[in-house]
Amino acid sequence: MKRISLHIIARRNRKTQLQGQTLSLNLSHPESTNRPRVVIVGAGFGGMAAARALRGNAAEVTLIDQTNHHLFQPLLYQVATAALSPSDIATATRVLMRGGSNLSVLMAEVTGVDIRARSVLLRDGHRLPYDYLVLATGSASSFFGQDNWREHTLVLKTIEDALAIRARLLEAFERAEQSTDDAEIRRLLTFAIVGGGPTGVELAGTISELARATLARDFSRIDPRDTRVVLCEAGGRLLSGFDPALSTYATEALTSMGVEVRIGTAVEAIDPTGVVLGSERIDTGAVLWCAGTEARPAAEWLGIDGVRNGAVTVRSDCSVPGHPNIFAIGDVASFEAGGDERLPALAPVAKQQGTYVGKLLAARIAGRREPGAFRYRDYGTMAVIGRSRAAAQFGRLRLTGFLAWLVWSLIHLMLLVDFRSRLVVYVNWAWAWFTYGRGARLLTGSTTSDARQPPLSDPESGRPDDK
Amino acid sequence: MKRISLHIIARRNRKTQLQGQTLSLNLSHPESTNRPRVVIVGAGFGGMAAARALRGNAAEVTLIDQTNHHLFQPLLYQVATAALSPSDIATATRVLMRGGSNLSVLMAEVTGVDIRARSVLLRDGHRLPYDYLVLATGSASSFFGQDNWREHTLVLKTIEDALAIRARLLEAFERAEQSTDDAEIRRLLTFAIVGGGPTGVELAGTISELARATLARDFSRIDPRDTRVVLCEAGGRLLSGFDPALSTYATEALTSMGVEVRIGTAVEAIDPTGVVLGSERIDTGAVLWCAGTEARPAAEWLGIDGVRNGAVTVRSDCSVPGHPNIFAIGDVASFEAGGDERLPALAPVAKQQGTYVGKLLAARIAGRREPGAFRYRDYGTMAVIGRSRAAAQFGRLRLTGFLAWLVWSLIHLMLLVDFRSRLVVYVNWAWAWFTYGRGARLLTGSTTSDARQPPLSDPESGRPDDK
Repeated sequence: MKRISLHIIARRNRKTQLQGQTLSLNLSHPESTNRPRVVIVGAGFGGMAAARALRGNAAEVTLIDQTNHHLFQPLLYQVATAALSPSDIATATRVLMRGGSNLSVLMAEVTGVDIRARSVLLRDGHRLPYDYLVLATGSASSFFGQDNWREHTLVLKTIEDALAIRARLLEAFERAEQSTDDAEIRRLLTFAIVGGGPTGVELAGTISELARATLARDFSRIDPRDTRVVLCEAGGRLLSGFDPALSTYATEALTSMGVEVRIGTAVEAIDPTGVVLGSERIDTGAVLWCAGTEARPAAEWLGIDGVRNGAVTVRSDCSVPGHPNIFAIGDVASFEAGGDERLPALAPVAKQQGTYVGKLLAARIAGRREPGAFRYRDYGTMAVIGRSRAAAQFGRLRLTGFLAWLVWSLIHLMLLVDFRSRLVVYVNWAWAWFTYGRGARLLTGSTTSDARQPPLSDPESGRPDDK
Repeated sequence: MKRISLHIIARRNRKTQLQGQTLSLNLSHPESTNRPRVVIVGAGFGGMAAARALRGNAAEVTLIDQTNHHLFQPLLYQVATAALSPSDIATATRVLMRGGSNLSVLMAEVTGVDIRARSVLLRDGHRLPYDYLVLATGSASSFFGQDNWREHTLVLKTIEDALAIRARLLEAFERAEQSTDDAEIRRLLTFAIVGGGPTGVELAGTISELARATLARDFSRIDPRDTRVVLCEAGGRLLSGFDPALSTYATEALTSMGVEVRIGTAVEAIDPTGVVLGSERIDTGAVLWCAGTEARPAAEWLGIDGVRNGAVTVRSDCSVPGHPNIFAIGDVASFEAGGDERLPALAPVAKQQGTYVGKLLAARIAGRREPGAFRYRDYGTMAVIGRSRAAAQFGRLRLTGFLAWLVWSLIHLMLLVDFRSRLVVYVNWAWAWFTYGRGARLLTGSTTSDARQPPLSDPESGRPDDK
């Protein structure tokens, strides 16, 4: 009886994508259908932690994600800058969910929630019934209402994004090597990064190193050390979530690495070949957008108003007000930590909330006493700036330089979910550290042909040498 | 003076892609333009060996390739079957060509050769002048005139091909897990491989292992061990280039691993959802084409007739008859080894011919005595069949089983071009060997949206459960 257990539960008369049929997808094992069904949407840090906390409990858990893998997002910038391969930091969700006979994984796209019928709607027309719903859908990039900027910039959320950035960076150098136009070469070798948070800082430092150390010897006509990396932060300092002393350190470290740090500089305009900062226009080969994020459409699914960035306001047990059986965790949730302050959109928050909700549901289903309100434990924050340089704060402790970088490296190696990844990342890092090399310098057609990529050349001006 | 050295050498009146202009791309360093220019097309085993043999010699060498990397093709099937990542077996060509001040790398697509003007034509309208030309463009898949089969099959030549196969395999299991139709599930979990040479044998064995060992525990509704792998060989035995005893061993080993080996079975038809073998129709989730190859269009560029598979017949010094300054090596060359027998399209042939031509040119340019006719030294052939099983022949020695597999592993590790790859591949192999796991189980959008992929579902029948 381990094969198929789909039942057509309802044939309603309203039109759905399936020609008037509504199919209900029941992934549970036939022998256990009377257990409460927990549906978790999103296999990031939050959703994965919730599922793991429910392993072996008396609940039928289904983890849904659009991709087949759990992504260790903190190292995604290293895929974008050719230091690591996608598989070094992504692991098949099914592998991570193994061993829990009450856990199943569904690779599918959720398009909505039917709160009345207690079911999740899938893109393919199926419905997935739930008794408890955990929304852990994360966040996407937001362009502060300037949605036309989206097509001219590259963002860093998924593996595809990272491969698109990698292709764009490597292609810029190849194109510059073949160009005959000085202005065009300068443009191709200028990269603007918008947003001075950890991702912006990490990308700026790493791209500068990629150009100045790794690629320096590899071209005969251009000198990759001429590369300009401009990091633009509209606020008053980099790493605004960190101690001000660390912001100063980051600015100095990046500057010494050749990055042009522009503080208090808002982007006025972005077009296919450049950005406008105040009154200055910078022609660029790529604009990397690390500025704003907005929650994915969980609030819309629930028919409620999201707060500022579209996140769902949650109660102290991470449940959605008025819906004690629906929870929102991680970037998609707005959790007030005290006063008006909201918990930041960070992996540890998502992870701790996931574990909390998993335990709460396990207790509720078993009829045990439920845990008290969720409390976030802040173990610290870190941002890497370059080879042997990082900024970290743990409680009152502030670390910079090589020691911070070493701690950052060790912690991130330990946090990688599987042992193979740890070994491979360690080998790659050690190799890169000693040789300044980068193993993942591949330009592959499937990434360069990505339709989301804006053109490397201005489509108006045609080929670099076409004049 | 290290920057730009493009000179418009000729403005002819005939139309080119560049609005009537013909631009000549001169990659050489200004101080050395009077050295003979050697242009090598293709950075595979042959082209890379030729360039390396010319390192430090009195020639200006330009290595052109459409991609930015040298690919270790013998392990490409491991990328296709999720055991390795692309960057494990591909290394940036610029990195491999470092340290030769007379070597430059150009990422560009060649569209033709102007023999009179002694220049290579590039897709972007540039011309690259040469004094000596080495064509090492390799081979592509051939469909014996059934070109409509191309769109219904997956081939394995490039990294994109391998990622497309990987996505197709993994997606088939995800789709089967969600399907509600027994026939559809059977179809999705049936893979046909056409061609019983080393690539076909390696893919068949590895896909069977992927299903039966790696994925076996990861699905709750389907049992991946029900997967059918059908290996079809039109000739009388598998591995026809090997000793007949090894063919028998391969057939027995594959059969014991659950592969259905069909010998003497030609494919009659291929459509989006299956293959026809004689009178039998097999509905498949994917057809992998490992049967025929044809040389890439070097013969056409030269305006000469290619032999059977389009290869250029070469003289005993690998030069093209009538063109002592043009050489063809590797898969694109047809070299008679003695009698009517042609050297096989194998990496060692390409590599040895590349080194030979590089040395010959170095001698000719220096005015030294040139080497005698090219002679191929056959050090042996190997094919891996599965975990701990391989077939190998070295001269009169025949090896099978674990020992052959061990030798195969060690030799392939040693042959990988860079030390980092060796370490990472070693870690991945060791991990896979002990755990049966595969680290590169990623389904990424940029590969699944590949336009070359035929649909997983029959477009006629719509969704699996749409009836």
